[in-house]
Amino acid sequence: MDTEINKHPHRRYNILTGEWILVSPHRTKRPWQGKTEKNNVEKRETYDPSCYLCPGNSRAGGETNPDYKSAYSFENDFPSLLPEAPLEDFENGLLKAEAETGICKVVCFSPDHSVTLPLMEKNDITEVVKLWKKEYRELGSKEDINYVQIFENKGAIMGCSNPHPHGQIWSQKSIPTEILKKSKHFKEYWNKNKSSLLGEYLKQELELNERILAQNEHFVALIPYWAVWPYEAMIIPKKHYHHIGQLNSEEEKAFAEIIKKLTIKYDNLFETSFPYSSGIHQIPTDGKEYPEWHFHMSFYPPLLRSATVKKYMVGYEMFAAPQRDITAEQAANNLNELSNIHYLNH
Amino acid sequence: MDTEINKHPHRRYNILTGEWILVSPHRTKRPWQGKTEKNNVEKRETYDPSCYLCPGNSRAGGETNPDYKSAYSFENDFPSLLPEAPLEDFENGLLKAEAETGICKVVCFSPDHSVTLPLMEKNDITEVVKLWKKEYRELGSKEDINYVQIFENKGAIMGCSNPHPHGQIWSQKSIPTEILKKSKHFKEYWNKNKSSLLGEYLKQELELNERILAQNEHFVALIPYWAVWPYEAMIIPKKHYHHIGQLNSEEEKAFAEIIKKLTIKYDNLFETSFPYSSGIHQIPTDGKEYPEWHFHMSFYPPLLRSATVKKYMVGYEMFAAPQRDITAEQAANNLNELSNIHYLNH
Ligand SMILES: O=P(O)(O)O[C@H]1O[C@H](CO)[C@@H](O)[C@H](O)[C@H]1O
Ligand SMILES: O=P(O)(O)O[C@H]1O[C@H](CO)[C@@H](O)[C@H](O)[C@H]1O
Repeated sequence: MDTEINKHPHRRYNILTGEWILVSPHRTKRPWQGKTEKNNVEKRETYDPSCYLCPGNSRAGGETNPDYKSAYSFENDFPSLLPEAPLEDFENGLLKAEAETGICKVVCFSPDHSVTLPLMEKNDITEVVKLWKKEYRELGSKEDINYVQIFENKGAIMGCSNPHPHGQIWSQKSIPTEILKKSKHFKEYWNKNKSSLLGEYLKQELELNERILAQNEHFVALIPYWAVWPYEAMIIPKKHYHHIGQLNSEEEKAFAEIIKKLTIKYDNLFETSFPYSSGIHQIPTDGKEYPEWHFHMSFYPPLLRSATVKKYMVGYEMFAAPQRDITAEQAANNLNELSNIHYLNH
Repeated sequence: MDTEINKHPHRRYNILTGEWILVSPHRTKRPWQGKTEKNNVEKRETYDPSCYLCPGNSRAGGETNPDYKSAYSFENDFPSLLPEAPLEDFENGLLKAEAETGICKVVCFSPDHSVTLPLMEKNDITEVVKLWKKEYRELGSKEDINYVQIFENKGAIMGCSNPHPHGQIWSQKSIPTEILKKSKHFKEYWNKNKSSLLGEYLKQELELNERILAQNEHFVALIPYWAVWPYEAMIIPKKHYHHIGQLNSEEEKAFAEIIKKLTIKYDNLFETSFPYSSGIHQIPTDGKEYPEWHFHMSFYPPLLRSATVKKYMVGYEMFAAPQRDITAEQAANNLNELSNIHYLNH
């Protein structure tokens, strides 16, 4: 199949979620008369007086941001989750609901309004990693916080409501669907093999060397075999770590470095500030043991052919299963051909 | 919980997929500085010489469309699935892929380039329903077609690559993820209660009358209790039918009528041609018995607050679980307050 795979429709299995995705590599010649996005090339100022994330500015909640100099976090003024929910769990016939509580935070990556992760210094990204660690530990140690989701929505087409470089953390009482799916598959593999599913997968990918994008002493960035989004990528620690709290200071730097490398490739692909949602999947903070879990960071970028044509996960994808056109191997090749220097710094 | 539910964060359980969604009703005051879409109000001509779906025009594949007068289908010139895939199933360590085959069709709803379902005559929508039935039966009876997905992507923001009113049908050998999820829950309920999960749910909704949008003798349109998209809706047949092939000619008309009613409400909400993906979930065509299945049609529309502000299913939603702001009951109320006459015909 290996040589033929880039030519014919097939499905690939996601070992972490147990779901299949449809790959249609022959379909890249499809004409596009659909929607194109505006290519956002406007240069931003380093400080924007109307931005509620810039240092010294006041926020909707009435607070004023301190004059912060590196990564800085605060509680979201419009949180989706609140620490208290004065609700009973509810069941009436086939209707079923539960109270949900949690804490939502915003993580500013930099005081500089104009930058993005690929344009930040490695040391400054390391400060972001340190802050993620701190938040994961602090939020996770609270009584009713059993799961901490760290994520970033980058770019207007990813619903990002403010271009100031920032991510979010939503932490909550219940363990969400995507984590339950992965827990199940990590655990089944662990029970059988007493090793990390993702660790074994990583070994295989390093041997095959077909989907690897970058690596350093502690991390590997690759296009997973079962990637859904055109240029979906994953950063995996070489050690079998369950959560980012386990990273030592060397590893924090290595994590920052590989994030920078990957996001530079992304920007270089279509010479645009590449939009994506990224997120870190790690063990729940409910105090239970999860020896099977292997933390990882994933990037789901929507762009398909250019800075203005994206892949839509709509009709068939919503009702049946995800579908992609270029294969994971083609995506890896396209990224690997690009320079490691950001196109704006050429 | 019932009276308090519209005020506090909670999770609701989807009885068909077994998944939970996060509802944050307190969050509607969140400011929006993010992306707004262009409100597509441009009026289209009834015939567009450059449209490959208009009658008499030639298509990318070299074919010429006949001078069709009502719903018309043909094989997609750029199909995601092909009838043959000269591939072996493939497994190598943790990499697993399978050949996939199928047939993709395009269904033109009308020869008139300028209309959409809510602007079509009921009789003409009935022709679309009849064609869906015919395709479901014909495709489903082919040897290697075990599932038939009928869907529509409406509007540029739903990745629709041509505004001519049309939908698609992708039919294939394997049974996709979303169908497997629902099959499991239909079946569990059937084994316990020997009745249709969705039929029982429908009874309860009709009694409560809190989320009903419209009904006629044969169908009900409602906002499901576990709706994910802001104005997500579902059309359910009152009889326990497994697939649309079972509809008689009275029921076909009733189906067309309720589709028209629902989509008129949608257009009236923000006085725009309301974008959505819709799809029909019904039993696989693998020849097995599925007495538990109850077919239904769902609509997933992205608009949230206006014709130009949509809900993004991004970061948290991709990595954890879907999240919504307005509740299902608020969505139903908003739609129920609107006229049944299309705003363009006022
Ligand atoms: O086939 P179309 O209309 O060109 O394409 C559209 O619908 C397909 C099926 O939902 C999706 O895979 C595409 O991403 C979308 O743009
Ligand atoms: O919180 P923000 O950035 O305003 O909102 C963005 O991220 C959230 C979490 O992924 C989503 O629920 C919103 O739909 C999106 O617009």
